[in-house]
Amino acid sequence: MSRKIRLGAFLPGGGQHVAAWRHPGSPSDGATNLAFHIELAKTAEKGLFDAYFLADGLSAGFAGGREGGSAKAAGFEPVTLFAALSAHTKRLGFIATASTTYEEPYQLARKFASLDLVTGGRAGWNVVTSTGDETARNFSRDTQLPHAERYARAREHVDVVRQLWDSWEDDAFLRDKESGQFFDRDRVHEINYEGEYFKVRGPLNTPRPPQGHPVVVQAGASEDGRDLAAATAEVIFTAHQNLSSAQEFYRDIKARAAAKGRDPREILVMPGVAPFIGRTLGEAQAKYDRLTSLILPEEGLALLNGLAGGTLDLTGYPLDGPLPPQDVTEGNKSRQVLIREIADRHGFTIRQLYQYVATARGHLTLIGTPKTIVDTLEEWFTSDAADGFNILPPWLPAGLEDFVGLIVPELQRRGLFRTEYEGRTLRENLGLARPENPWTRARSALAAE
Amino acid sequence: MSRKIRLGAFLPGGGQHVAAWRHPGSPSDGATNLAFHIELAKTAEKGLFDAYFLADGLSAGFAGGREGGSAKAAGFEPVTLFAALSAHTKRLGFIATASTTYEEPYQLARKFASLDLVTGGRAGWNVVTSTGDETARNFSRDTQLPHAERYARAREHVDVVRQLWDSWEDDAFLRDKESGQFFDRDRVHEINYEGEYFKVRGPLNTPRPPQGHPVVVQAGASEDGRDLAAATAEVIFTAHQNLSSAQEFYRDIKARAAAKGRDPREILVMPGVAPFIGRTLGEAQAKYDRLTSLILPEEGLALLNGLAGGTLDLTGYPLDGPLPPQDVTEGNKSRQVLIREIADRHGFTIRQLYQYVATARGHLTLIGTPKTIVDTLEEWFTSDAADGFNILPPWLPAGLEDFVGLIVPELQRRGLFRTEYEGRTLRENLGLARPENPWTRARSALAAE
Repeated sequence: MSRKIRLGAFLPGGGQHVAAWRHPGSPSDGATNLAFHIELAKTAEKGLFDAYFLADGLSAGFAGGREGGSAKAAGFEPVTLFAALSAHTKRLGFIATASTTYEEPYQLARKFASLDLVTGGRAGWNVVTSTGDETARNFSRDTQLPHAERYARAREHVDVVRQLWDSWEDDAFLRDKESGQFFDRDRVHEINYEGEYFKVRGPLNTPRPPQGHPVVVQAGASEDGRDLAAATAEVIFTAHQNLSSAQEFYRDIKARAAAKGRDPREILVMPGVAPFIGRTLGEAQAKYDRLTSLILPEEGLALLNGLAGGTLDLTGYPLDGPLPPQDVTEGNKSRQVLIREIADRHGFTIRQLYQYVATARGHLTLIGTPKTIVDTLEEWFTSDAADGFNILPPWLPAGLEDFVGLIVPELQRRGLFRTEYEGRTLRENLGLARPENPWTRARSALAAE
Repeated sequence: MSRKIRLGAFLPGGGQHVAAWRHPGSPSDGATNLAFHIELAKTAEKGLFDAYFLADGLSAGFAGGREGGSAKAAGFEPVTLFAALSAHTKRLGFIATASTTYEEPYQLARKFASLDLVTGGRAGWNVVTSTGDETARNFSRDTQLPHAERYARAREHVDVVRQLWDSWEDDAFLRDKESGQFFDRDRVHEINYEGEYFKVRGPLNTPRPPQGHPVVVQAGASEDGRDLAAATAEVIFTAHQNLSSAQEFYRDIKARAAAKGRDPREILVMPGVAPFIGRTLGEAQAKYDRLTSLILPEEGLALLNGLAGGTLDLTGYPLDGPLPPQDVTEGNKSRQVLIREIADRHGFTIRQLYQYVATARGHLTLIGTPKTIVDTLEEWFTSDAADGFNILPPWLPAGLEDFVGLIVPELQRRGLFRTEYEGRTLRENLGLARPENPWTRARSALAAE
């Protein structure tokens, strides 16, 4: 079987673009409208996407935002939402974001194990460390943990969660009505984890998930982030503006994974892409211009500042002038550098910069016909820049419908994408192996001696 | 409208009774079988139950249990499960248990707000403090917090959660595409909570739930527990073996609530009832004997010990002899006393005691015909002992089907129970008022001056 492109879809009901909710074709209450999310999930499944992906934060995100402008200030908790959506779909995966800094591993492990059970093996966990003091202040802290500590904690957290998922062996349940043995006590294990941040006995009170482990996803771009991703992630979500940057990242991640003794093919690198699709280039450009015109200037400035972690206050500078020079400071360094790179490369004014960034917050924006867009996706896919893509439709539902109706058939025509789901679980569809249970492996090894 | 009986249903897929999974009519994998839970939810809705209720723990519960005997060691996380079940029902409420000791209020508040959104206002939160060192050891502690501290923390926790639910006013969302105002910044509020255990700024990043607050449920029996329930609960789940004990509790809770300035009618007292229902008394008794015969002796002893918090090891005592005398010790005092009262009142041997207790872990067991069982329910309901009942079908699905097919029609015939759902939300069906938002109230008061 030839290698196929993997596709995730970022579908926050309020739309990805900062002005998406103002689009005449979008429901203004999409962010909190269950029926609309059900419709999106069904469309994504019709388009044979691997997974529905949702980012998540643990604050209303007012810091740096325009007062009262954001459609993302309030929405669903993703695992609860996905459990509800799963009843309306059969094959689509669900990748939910959850925090290693503000959730206990025992709770997180069982929540995702439950989602995996409820969906019949379609769950994924996007591991985040949750930045920002605004979030910390919702959790009895004044400031967030330092970057390095957040990542060290994340590393332990993922370890604990994985060990908890393995605490029941797959064949632990006997359910023998005759003898009264419900499970084999020798096939369920305390994990007795003792680390710097966590001390967890186990076992989990949820069976081993259908997938063994829900698919582990990561999006770190910093050194610590890349290291965590290479060590733990099976899917990596990443933002690149051009092929060479994506290739550098792809090579780096695969090399880091190999250095840790992992098979690089077991780590899928999936850059984000925000597409504006038209039957003609003019139609695509018109869609871009239409959406872009809906951004209020104060919203655009707040967006740039928010992306840069509050280090880029452009209030007072002429919107149609250049980005003023400024030193890169601590906090969201990689995002600050990315923003300046975009401005420099395109020679953008401040207005053009926020218009550009607003479409996908630093991800690759493609404005074109099915042919030109698929040309780019194919080039990235076949030249060691991507194993697939996370699609961020700028507004909904039309941005997703355009992709399913126009891009998917072209990908299929070129043999780059599936024409039906290969498997029942997210892992099967992504072509990722089901993790072996270490307890079972140890027993088998012993028996073979 | 005359006062009606409220009904909750405890439907753990593995069955309530310790030997339920061994019953020939029960699926042995019910505890982790989604399709079976969907079937139970649909049956409960057909029976017009107010809510599907699930208890929850944060450990596999091995301490004190028979090795490998328990069908309850592993199951679903309730909120995730309920979100999935909600798609298959329209009016049934869902009361999920969650812990004030091991969950952060911000996470808990948004999880239940999301469940309320996803279900269209059918969520309830059963507040528990999660006892036991086995649980503590899954959360980086060696021993559990002392009883009083758990309850003091619970009191604060519920306060924080309620304030977070109120942090967005109901009319905060403008969603005005023209002006670009998505919400009114003056109608969303930081809560700036600073207590002994929590410091939470807010606002929540989920809208105010459809019900204002999901229904708050409690089951405390201790002094601290009753006090917490009287202060915070809208539904109280409780265990009583006889009318006078239930009446004493009912009077006490309503008086405590009144003393706190609450309307006692806004607190529904719902004792647990485990019914064995037959068209004749003989048929009912045969059902009881059938299920009871499936309890293995070591399971029965482990159950008694577990109920008493590990203070009652009866290994070695003759099963057909009396309960040996023993002092009541610290830990689960109210349960220890309850167990001895049952033994004394019925003159039970050890075997009879565990058989009796196994059916409902201290809740009232009724073995009878629709007439005799409804006689008892009516007596309790009309003599200040109960506003409704939590039904614990000893085994599933037949125990639930018997109730829906035989008891519900008899309750309806006597005018004691609804013939169709009165409302769309759990709160409406329970006849509980939607909580006012204090910010909105303050604004209205100001405007009226």
